[in-house]
Parts: sequence; structure tokens; C-alpha cells
Amino acid sequence: MRATTLHAAQDIRFTEVDDPRIEKPTDAIVKVTAACICGSDLWPYRGENPITPGQTIGHECLGVIEEVGSEVSGFRAGDLVVVPFDHCDNTCAHCRAGMQAGCMNLGFTQSGQAEYTRVNQADGSLVALPVDHDPALLPALLTLSDVMPTGWHAAVSAGVRPGSTAVVIGDGAVGLCGVLAAATIGAERIIAMSRHEPRQEIARRFGATHIVAERGAEALAAVMEITDGIGADAVLECVGTDQSMKTAFDVARPGSMVGFVGVPHGVELPVRTMFGRNVGLAGGMAPVRRYLPELLELVLAGRIDPGPVFDLTLPLEEVAEGYRAMDERRAIKVLLQP
Amino acid sequence: MRATTLHAAQDIRFTEVDDPRIEKPTDAIVKVTAACICGSDLWPYRGENPITPGQTIGHECLGVIEEVGSEVSGFRAGDLVVVPFDHCDNTCAHCRAGMQAGCMNLGFTQSGQAEYTRVNQADGSLVALPVDHDPALLPALLTLSDVMPTGWHAAVSAGVRPGSTAVVIGDGAVGLCGVLAAATIGAERIIAMSRHEPRQEIARRFGATHIVAERGAEALAAVMEITDGIGADAVLECVGTDQSMKTAFDVARPGSMVGFVGVPHGVELPVRTMFGRNVGLAGGMAPVRRYLPELLELVLAGRIDPGPVFDLTLPLEEVAEGYRAMDERRAIKVLLQP
Repeated sequence: MRATTLHAAQDIRFTEVDDPRIEKPTDAIVKVTAACICGSDLWPYRGENPITPGQTIGHECLGVIEEVGSEVSGFRAGDLVVVPFDHCDNTCAHCRAGMQAGCMNLGFTQSGQAEYTRVNQADGSLVALPVDHDPALLPALLTLSDVMPTGWHAAVSAGVRPGSTAVVIGDGAVGLCGVLAAATIGAERIIAMSRHEPRQEIARRFGATHIVAERGAEALAAVMEITDGIGADAVLECVGTDQSMKTAFDVARPGSMVGFVGVPHGVELPVRTMFGRNVGLAGGMAPVRRYLPELLELVLAGRIDPGPVFDLTLPLEEVAEGYRAMDERRAIKVLLQP
Repeated sequence: MRATTLHAAQDIRFTEVDDPRIEKPTDAIVKVTAACICGSDLWPYRGENPITPGQTIGHECLGVIEEVGSEVSGFRAGDLVVVPFDHCDNTCAHCRAGMQAGCMNLGFTQSGQAEYTRVNQADGSLVALPVDHDPALLPALLTLSDVMPTGWHAAVSAGVRPGSTAVVIGDGAVGLCGVLAAATIGAERIIAMSRHEPRQEIARRFGATHIVAERGAEALAAVMEITDGIGADAVLECVGTDQSMKTAFDVARPGSMVGFVGVPHGVELPVRTMFGRNVGLAGGMAPVRRYLPELLELVLAGRIDPGPVFDLTLPLEEVAEGYRAMDERRAIKVLLQP
């Protein structure tokens, strides 16, 4: 099959690789019908993570089941499915407790930006889509494989409640989905930190009531003014750098939580400040399968539309241009069509 | 008055100092009738915190009001009160949200191991004791100024729920109160980490169902065996060292929380592990005033008795021996009688 592969920093190619095969009887092979590029794909692309030359890349997709292993009973060839980036059996103790990202049989999508991909634990991982859905919903449905549940996980981990004030740090697709999540859960004031006008506009569409374009001490001052000196009831940290994490703890009111979903890179947590101010930290890799049914229902009912996070659509074979566009911040998120 | 003062590492004295005075109209002066030594007093005692020679020390006490400022309306001279170590107005936005440890008018007991002490924000901070209480309850009531609410805060921050499995790290008085808190909240399995037999015995009395005496990798293996390979639903970190924090994250199951109340010393939080395993951290300085009314009710109703954390009682003037006994782990916690 043809797949996106990474060969060195900035060296993304669309090349011929071996087809994925059923390796375990619980696997399924999915023919990808829509894929996209994740902000976290930029870490290896930029050489910030180690690279195995020729490795396939991409973990967000949906598609049609091509083949199932002998033990898969809930799905069959032809089913249209969302593929959560983190695969789980959905039956182990961790899954039953709602932490599918810690599944005892955890797996990951390895070739999401490709013609085919293998899904581990197909029965537990996959969620079927109604085949008669409106094609206009495709972008929204595609976000359910990672970015929307990840933004939702930030909001849940931060303890967003109806009527509360949430600050969202990060105006990438995850941060924007975090705004949408906070609004859907019922936050009354949502302060989006963004200095890019097109992203500010989407943040407003998704429910942001305030935009803070400043950084550092000025950002803190702005949040304090908006919140009458109290700070945020909940902070969604959707970046993963040391500076964004510091800002998160700065703007959080005593007793609140920072929900973090940006893979931390170079972050040193301010443990004494956390202790002294009673500001906690929770989150991590999103348990996509936990949130997926609820989010799918919200999308199908027209109650949320995370689709606008995609501002560039390219044929799959032009994936390298998609990476460049996101790396240079010319695009928020790129949808790829095989 | 006579007060406990610290002059250098290991140099505790009982000396003559100026009487505390009403400085603000919201202050009260309390004549201390029972005091005690906190595990956190050992940090400056051991020279781990900076010392101002001659500084008064001690922040846990109860007593009788001697004098109140002109704006204090809820208390008057003669009232028997518990003095939370952290003083609060109990009316600001943070207090109203239940985070009195982040009060906008926060203050602290400065001379708890002394004949008198000043209380800031007396109306907000203090809680009256029924004067006709059983004198046998005195030790239990004294724990309400810090150690019992601190153990309770660890349990609340860790998200202990009825039926859950809690691990308590630390067999000092706070850890033991953490065991009692977890049991009172309804944890079904409580694993106390302790290698000291007298402390294990109190832990069992307080509700521990299992004792783990091992440390490091062996402690993790022991907890995993007890929990069928799942780990703890909630972890109470009641020490504050890097090793204890590492153990806390090790034994926590994916999606759970570590509640920390030991002042962190040299702790580097494992942010990548926290992210990858979705184990959060919450807690800090306990909002004593928040929990006090409920805990007082539990003590007066005979439903909890944290009193056994005191295993040595000394006259206040022998406070230096009390510090030595706790430093050398000859005593768990020392009660001081003026």
C-alpha cells in the first residue's frame, strides 16, 4: 500500500510499504477514507522525537473495515468506523473504570495517514458510524479519532463545570476543541489564549467569551482582570511546553485543576507552587473510546461541530505539503483524502 | 510570655518573648491550653528550612480566647476554640469555594507552642468547642488544628470514594490520619505503608486492612499483588520526599489521583509518567477551616478518634525533648501541656 513515512526531520514522503496484516485474531484492517495530521505528529517531524527512517506515521483516521480477525464479533467488512488513536479492549479493569488510555491491551494506530491501517482489539476500540450520515459531517466525525476527545479530556481533567470560568491555553486544533468542550459542558466564561486572528475567530465560534493575546505576566494580568482577581476555575493546557504549563498554573485559582493533554516536552512542574496554591494537575493521553459514543451523539445531533478545526484539505499523496503547512502555522489542521 | 523558639538547627529553647498583641481589629489572642509538634516543624529543626535565630515556632494548638479585636463579633474572651494553623476570613471568593488555604487574607499561627498566640481573621478562622466536652477528647480535638484535616485533605484530594482501594504513604501522624480519613470516607481496602510496628498497629486501629513494610520496587510488587495487578484507586502521599512521591505514582492505577499533603522537599514530578499513565496530582496545604466543622462533629459523636497519634505528652517547657523524640522517631507525635 501507499503510506506516509518519515525518514528524517522535515523529510515526509508518501511511499510504498507492506500492507498491514491481521496479526492477532482480535485485529481488524481498516481501509482509510479520511485521515488528518495531528499537532503531535510535528514533534517527530521537527526531529524533537527519535526517528526510525522509513517509519509510518499518522494516528487519526476513519474508514471502512476491510478484514477482521477470527475473534472479532462486533464488526465485519464494509462497516464504516471511527478509529480511536489509542486502541483498547474496553473490558479490562482500567477500561471499565473509564481509563481506556491505560488499557491492559493498549495499542496504537501506526499508519493512519495511509491507505490501510491495523486496529488492535477491534471489538473494544472501534465505534460504528451510521452509513447514511451527511457527508458534510465528515470533518466533524474525523475529529472523533483524537482531537475532539482530547480537547474533551482536557476539560474533564480540569474539572470544568456548568457556570465555571475556564482558561484554554493553546489555539491549535486541540485547544480549539477544548474551548468547544468547555462550552458544551456549560462553562460560562471561556478565555481562549490566542494571538492568531483566524484561530481567535474559530475559538469565538466554539464558545470563547474572551480572547487573551498576551503572554507571560501580561496574560496573567489579563486573566485576573477578567476574573475579578480570582483566576480560573479550570485551566486546559493544550500545548505541552514549559512556558504554557507555567502560564496554566499562574492563571489557575487556588483549589483548581489544570487539565493537560499536550504531550509534555521539557516541562518542569512547579511542585512548591502547586502545593502552596493547591492547584492540581490531571490528564494525559485521552481515553478516546470512553468519550466517543457521547461525542458522536453530539455531532450527529448537530449539537457540536468541531469540523472547522480543519482549514486545509489535501489529497493524501500531498501529505508532505500538509506537514509543511502545519509546521509553518499556515494551517491549523490538515484533512487528507485518500 | 514563654514560648518555644528556634535558634539554629537542633537548638530549640523555651524562652521569654514579647506577648503577642492585637495588631488588627480582626485579630484575637488565644491562651494556649494544649499544643503539639508537627512533622513539618522538623524541617526547620533539622536545618532544612532557613532559620531566623530566636523565631517562635509551632502552629497547632487549641485554647481559650484571651482578647479579641474590635471587629471580632463571633467570639469573646473565655471561649474555648480550635485554632486552625492557616487563618482565613472564610468569606472571600477562595474561602467560599472551599479553598480556605488560599484565602485572600491568609495568616498563620506563629507561636502555637507558647503560652499565647495571635489568630488573624478570628471570626473566619476559629471554631468554638463545647466547653463541657469530655477531657478524654482533648487529644482528638487538638488534632483538628492541623494533622487530622491534613490527612483528610489528602484523602479528598486523592478522590477516595466508598468501596475504593487507597494506599497511604507515610506512617507519621498525618499518614495515620490519612488512613483514618480514607476509612471514614468508606474506602474498602486501605494499604498503609509502614515499617514501624507501633505505627502499623495504630494504622490498623484506624482502618488499614493491609500493611506494606517494603519500599521501592518491592513495595510496588506488594501493592500490585494486593490489588490483583490493578493498583490503587487513590494514593495519599503524606511524606513529601522525592522517593515517596515516586512510590505514590508507581502504585497509582491509570486514571487515579495522588493526593499530596507533605510539604515537598527535593521533589521532581515525573511529568511524562503522569501524562502517559493519566495519574494526576492534587492537594497542598490543607484548608483546615473547610473540614473542621464536619470533623469536630465526627469527633464529638465518637465516630473518629485521631487522638492515638499522640504517643508522648510533655509539659510545654520540655518542648526540646519533644522535638528530639520526634526527630529520632522515638515518638510519633508529641502533645505539649502549658
